Amino acid sequence: MFAEDRDSILPRAVAWHDGELRLLDQTRLPQAEVYVSCRDVETVYEAIASLRVRGAPAIGIAAAYGLLLPFQDIHVPDELRVQDSQVSIEELQRRADYLIQARPTAVNLAWAIKRMLNSAQGRQNVDVLTLLKEAKAIHAEDAKACRAIGEFGAPLVSGHPRLLTHCNAGALAVSELGTALAPIYVAHRQGIKLHVFVDETRPLLQGARLTAWELRRAGVDSTLITDSMAATVMAEGRVDAVIVGADRVAANGDVANKIGTLNLAILCKYFNLPFYVACPWSTIDLNTPQGSDIAIEQRLSSEVTRIMDVPIAPDGVGVFNPAFDVTPAALVTCVITERGVIEPPFAVNLRAG
Amino acid sequence: MFAEDRDSILPRAVAWHDGELRLLDQTRLPQAEVYVSCRDVETVYEAIASLRVRGAPAIGIAAAYGLLLPFQDIHVPDELRVQDSQVSIEELQRRADYLIQARPTAVNLAWAIKRMLNSAQGRQNVDVLTLLKEAKAIHAEDAKACRAIGEFGAPLVSGHPRLLTHCNAGALAVSELGTALAPIYVAHRQGIKLHVFVDETRPLLQGARLTAWELRRAGVDSTLITDSMAATVMAEGRVDAVIVGADRVAANGDVANKIGTLNLAILCKYFNLPFYVACPWSTIDLNTPQGSDIAIEQRLSSEVTRIMDVPIAPDGVGVFNPAFDVTPAALVTCVITERGVIEPPFAVNLRAG
Repeated sequence: MFAEDRDSILPRAVAWHDGELRLLDQTRLPQAEVYVSCRDVETVYEAIASLRVRGAPAIGIAAAYGLLLPFQDIHVPDELRVQDSQVSIEELQRRADYLIQARPTAVNLAWAIKRMLNSAQGRQNVDVLTLLKEAKAIHAEDAKACRAIGEFGAPLVSGHPRLLTHCNAGALAVSELGTALAPIYVAHRQGIKLHVFVDETRPLLQGARLTAWELRRAGVDSTLITDSMAATVMAEGRVDAVIVGADRVAANGDVANKIGTLNLAILCKYFNLPFYVACPWSTIDLNTPQGSDIAIEQRLSSEVTRIMDVPIAPDGVGVFNPAFDVTPAALVTCVITERGVIEPPFAVNLRAG
Repeated sequence: MFAEDRDSILPRAVAWHDGELRLLDQTRLPQAEVYVSCRDVETVYEAIASLRVRGAPAIGIAAAYGLLLPFQDIHVPDELRVQDSQVSIEELQRRADYLIQARPTAVNLAWAIKRMLNSAQGRQNVDVLTLLKEAKAIHAEDAKACRAIGEFGAPLVSGHPRLLTHCNAGALAVSELGTALAPIYVAHRQGIKLHVFVDETRPLLQGARLTAWELRRAGVDSTLITDSMAATVMAEGRVDAVIVGADRVAANGDVANKIGTLNLAILCKYFNLPFYVACPWSTIDLNTPQGSDIAIEQRLSSEVTRIMDVPIAPDGVGVFNPAFDVTPAALVTCVITERGVIEPPFAVNLRAG
């Protein structure tokens, strides 16, 4: 069916095979491993909008392939196609305008769609194989970045093999391996014995639902905790380092990431543990001087007052629900990217990277 | 029906009225306010075992009254009874042996039952009015301690009116007012404008289910957050102090309390905020030299992997689920008790208290 790779034990959030886009339905995890077969752009839209596919890189890749759909002659091997049908620039633009609305605030979605449109180079009719090549390039570049993050980060986690991570910055969020989890998977493959504490990551429980699932599937020893237990596992000497992903890194090294990240960075400072951030270079935003310039999205109060649709709080209670927090650069040990490990002073070294 | 008091807007976890014991069913909160009418010891046992009544003082009070059941001539006003039936010491001991099994590790349950038995003074037959007097004394002493904690703590919270609390150390856990929430209720009644951030307190969500409910009912302005958001609300300057209860305070001032408390104490240190602990003097255990001598109960993994019986994690995942954590004395600003506010050095001042 779908091509397996050397990491076959790792899930693939997004896969393309001979005219068919397959997405792992992350809303069904961890109870069921169900794949959505997308043969039209509407199915891709729905999958992005309802978070069946999530994680900035994975969304961008899914959208890039989504622009190709519907695809002629599915199940004909891609490599046997020398030419294929054309799509008009109007139709491509229509699909792009439609798909970008699936998650209007997702930067990677807009970026991938724009890159696909640029590959059409203003022609009236575009060969879909040209578009397919571009989508595959977006996909391959992300995979290459994740592998490089894994390679650069592996020595760090090997030296601190008892880790704690937050949210899901793993294979499920990207093309393969992940960002924060990439060094863990690479070190694991090198035979290093690791253990990972997984924060459940309220409100949306990406740690419990996704990270615990993919680490278990990959055979990495892990233990699930609630977010409030991180201090205790550190106090008991069970953790050597924390590693997390990032949603955006400001020019001074301040890190915006899933709510709860700042908490962990402060605990690392108190317990004198390294706090590693792993992300692709595209996450580093040199146009944002510092963390306080990053607008923090407030999300629906029902994410806090309900869990899996079960009410847990009194009706009408006031709720504060920021999606992200900002960790000051001073609490960050280093930023692991595909260009290498960036150390302080970040204001200098990120710009030089 | 049941006598209301000047805090009628505050719920009563335990109430006795003319031969009837009424318990607020906390397993139904916050969706429904349902009271269990207990007319036999079996109903009290079930209510304690299934956490319908929880919080060490509330359990002790419920058990004390429970030993009186079944009670003759219910609905006859207690104050009109000049004498009543007797209960044999064998029957009283039978009820005690039975009730103590409802939550074998709850220290207050055993303490209250022992005190009731002692009030029988070795007599073969005990007048139930003697027992009733003792149960009411246990109840009244707890109420007096909570009011004193409230009075001693009110100036502290009035000076730091934007608070954050964890778990439920409120009216629902005790006779009235609470421990950590007592200073808040007293200050609120004094007209001080307060705001309380309520940690949801995973895994069992006592903050979301109980504290948010009782603060709202009492008219105290509050906002529910997940445990992982505490760092952000502090970073944004929205919190002046943290106030929590305690399960046990060691002789050196180390504090065992609901898991997540240590996390908050470390955040207070980082953000230079006061960290207040409020508890009755009975919580201070001078026989325990330090926090590391306190055994931490590990609870069922299903508390982490399921929320309100809905699975949120993959089957078979490893889980770490300590019920409590230990906050080192160095992170505690002061301990608010019914004897006054105890300040460092705790090793000296707790013993002198």
